[in-house]
Amino acid sequence: MKREFKPNSNRIESNIEELAKIGKVGESGVRRFVFTPEEMKAREYVIDLMKQAELQVKVDAAGNIIGKRLRCSDTSLPSVMVGSHIDTPILGGKYDGTVGVLGAIESVRLLNQHSVTTRHPIEVVVFAGEELARFGVCFKGSFGMVGLLTEELMREVKDSDGVSYWDAMLKVGLNPEDYESARREPETVKCYLEMHIEQGRVLEEASKQICIVQAIAGASRGLATFHGLADHAGATSMNLRKDALAAAAEVVLCLEKYSQQEAHLGSVGTVGALNVEPGSMNIVPGKVTMSLEIRGVDLASKKRVIANLNRKILEVSTRREMKIETEWSEDSDPTPVPQHMIKLIEGVCLELGIDYLIMPSGAGHDAGFMARITDMGMIFVPSVKGISHAPDEYTRIEDISLGTELLTNVLLRLAEEVTDF
Amino acid sequence: MKREFKPNSNRIESNIEELAKIGKVGESGVRRFVFTPEEMKAREYVIDLMKQAELQVKVDAAGNIIGKRLRCSDTSLPSVMVGSHIDTPILGGKYDGTVGVLGAIESVRLLNQHSVTTRHPIEVVVFAGEELARFGVCFKGSFGMVGLLTEELMREVKDSDGVSYWDAMLKVGLNPEDYESARREPETVKCYLEMHIEQGRVLEEASKQICIVQAIAGASRGLATFHGLADHAGATSMNLRKDALAAAAEVVLCLEKYSQQEAHLGSVGTVGALNVEPGSMNIVPGKVTMSLEIRGVDLASKKRVIANLNRKILEVSTRREMKIETEWSEDSDPTPVPQHMIKLIEGVCLELGIDYLIMPSGAGHDAGFMARITDMGMIFVPSVKGISHAPDEYTRIEDISLGTELLTNVLLRLAEEVTDF
Repeated sequence: MKREFKPNSNRIESNIEELAKIGKVGESGVRRFVFTPEEMKAREYVIDLMKQAELQVKVDAAGNIIGKRLRCSDTSLPSVMVGSHIDTPILGGKYDGTVGVLGAIESVRLLNQHSVTTRHPIEVVVFAGEELARFGVCFKGSFGMVGLLTEELMREVKDSDGVSYWDAMLKVGLNPEDYESARREPETVKCYLEMHIEQGRVLEEASKQICIVQAIAGASRGLATFHGLADHAGATSMNLRKDALAAAAEVVLCLEKYSQQEAHLGSVGTVGALNVEPGSMNIVPGKVTMSLEIRGVDLASKKRVIANLNRKILEVSTRREMKIETEWSEDSDPTPVPQHMIKLIEGVCLELGIDYLIMPSGAGHDAGFMARITDMGMIFVPSVKGISHAPDEYTRIEDISLGTELLTNVLLRLAEEVTDF
Repeated sequence: MKREFKPNSNRIESNIEELAKIGKVGESGVRRFVFTPEEMKAREYVIDLMKQAELQVKVDAAGNIIGKRLRCSDTSLPSVMVGSHIDTPILGGKYDGTVGVLGAIESVRLLNQHSVTTRHPIEVVVFAGEELARFGVCFKGSFGMVGLLTEELMREVKDSDGVSYWDAMLKVGLNPEDYESARREPETVKCYLEMHIEQGRVLEEASKQICIVQAIAGASRGLATFHGLADHAGATSMNLRKDALAAAAEVVLCLEKYSQQEAHLGSVGTVGALNVEPGSMNIVPGKVTMSLEIRGVDLASKKRVIANLNRKILEVSTRREMKIETEWSEDSDPTPVPQHMIKLIEGVCLELGIDYLIMPSGAGHDAGFMARITDMGMIFVPSVKGISHAPDEYTRIEDISLGTELLTNVLLRLAEEVTDF
């Protein structure tokens, strides 16, 4: 007899709306920075939901909430972990992160309803400080779980009031001194699964409801500074100018061109921030500072974009006789999702008749760090118009529901149902 | 017997340094916004110098200081006017404007020393509010003198505290209601002469000490707004983007290219200000606003740059499927200096053995507006490294002195010395 794990859409929607009330800004905006009173209140709400779903809840020394399902044949077997985060960017919406957490809890509720016992325990995890908003650093909770967190990092990163991550943890009753206890040994985790909103428009353009993530992009980030000469815009003839903005414009367009050349391999390049000094209508720009970001799931392709960009910057600098400095602050390689995880999710999609797409994630996720200790897999649900990290962020409840149905079935495969228990 | 009108360099330098103390900011910066206590103090200083030079001083209803030399055969004959301004940009230096005012006063002192009587009276003028710093509008004093000032303008333009030009005038004891009395009938002015710093590097590059201005550039100024789509920089593939900054970069480079093509005719094009929204490293730019400025002394050339620019904006908008709005706020034609004025100044240069250059002024000057009622001429002295409107602005005293010698001799020609008086 075929059982169906049909999520209760009203229940998920009501959870999303209740959670969105905590830290609400304006009509549909949400601001919950990690370890602030709003975020602590949201944690309480999620912990309550976990307890109602019969999960045994603890908070580890890195601040991650972990709810363990005890209805399994052996609680000491490696766990199937599933989760996401509930903190937000500077001004976010209702869906980024929360959909993965509330979806995972709904999955547990469905398993409970069907009295399912699994071989492996399931652990629902809410990662602390996934967003960079408050402290300027992402993925702090998953860092703790995979052994990347350090006392130095926690003491160095500070919020706009000068409060360190370390002190913020102390203030909410956590023990950052014990941070190493948050580290999970690979043998304690069977795999990690995460559902998230897409944050792009690929699913929408392709009219698909589900994405199976193929790889999580690596990112290189830096700043370029163009040292031109600020001159009177009326009195300085064209041949005497060292226009920092014109030089920067060349680099903006080249990064776009090189990224477009590598687009079929999933690479993207962006200049998102650009500042002109002195920035007056009648003064030739003397200095431009701009951000550089290159992401890619194909390491060779991403490296080609960066190499071409660096070559171009050198060429512009030589031709325009202008000093251009680049400073790279971040450089991570892409993280592939193991083939057997993709295949397993794909198999469930086919079984459920879900029209899916396999594609890379340009955005970073905790799953990318969990990959250091375990096999991971990710599912994306569509973002209407691709909007995310903004109050207008929106994902239809039927899409969240379908994603949760897929998540539940995948969880069940990974945790292995025990029928003769 | 050939007389020499050799300026007293120490005297001019001391005047410059004294004036620079009023409104001094930092080591060499000067901030004197029109009708502020600093500027009023500077006016007192200049009025004192004028009186010491035996000029009859009055302040007209537009706030211009006028010092009339009475040692002439007929004070009712049209005057030879000479001057500049003493107000500054947001943070200026010691030379812009002041060199023209203090040089003109030195010229009068030299004529007095040589007991020169002229046929035409000489009037030294300090124009009010030449800079746009406080009220966002330039040339308010010369506007008043040529009949361009209106009650509407004076009431509409306001400083950052919301004080109108009208109220600022009232506050310093002027009568803006009488502004029409500041208007000079063309028959009362024989010509207008102005010495100014170059504000560019052309003289320096050409190793010349004097420029005779050929024409004052006309300027077209506007804003372009690029309406792209703000998207997640990781999750939005290159083909789905509407990157407002990439579109803007194309326009920046095209304005540079079209201006370079017209450079031999003196046209210049500049994007001096550019603002990116939301301006975050990991978000595709959704909106860019940038300034557009095209100046030229050749009307047809300037118009070609603008026409090409508009065509390019349309092409970029169509190709990128992005709304681009342009709003032109200012559009003035170039003002040529009359040939006989250029020839007269050139003749004096040759006589004095000055190695000059005839070239256009890209910057705007009160002389450009005086051209509406009289013949005008301009002399530039070099700006070291072309720096102006900044504390580092610098012109060598020997160059100011040479400019003043030229100015004095030209004044004498124009005012026509009377030997048998």
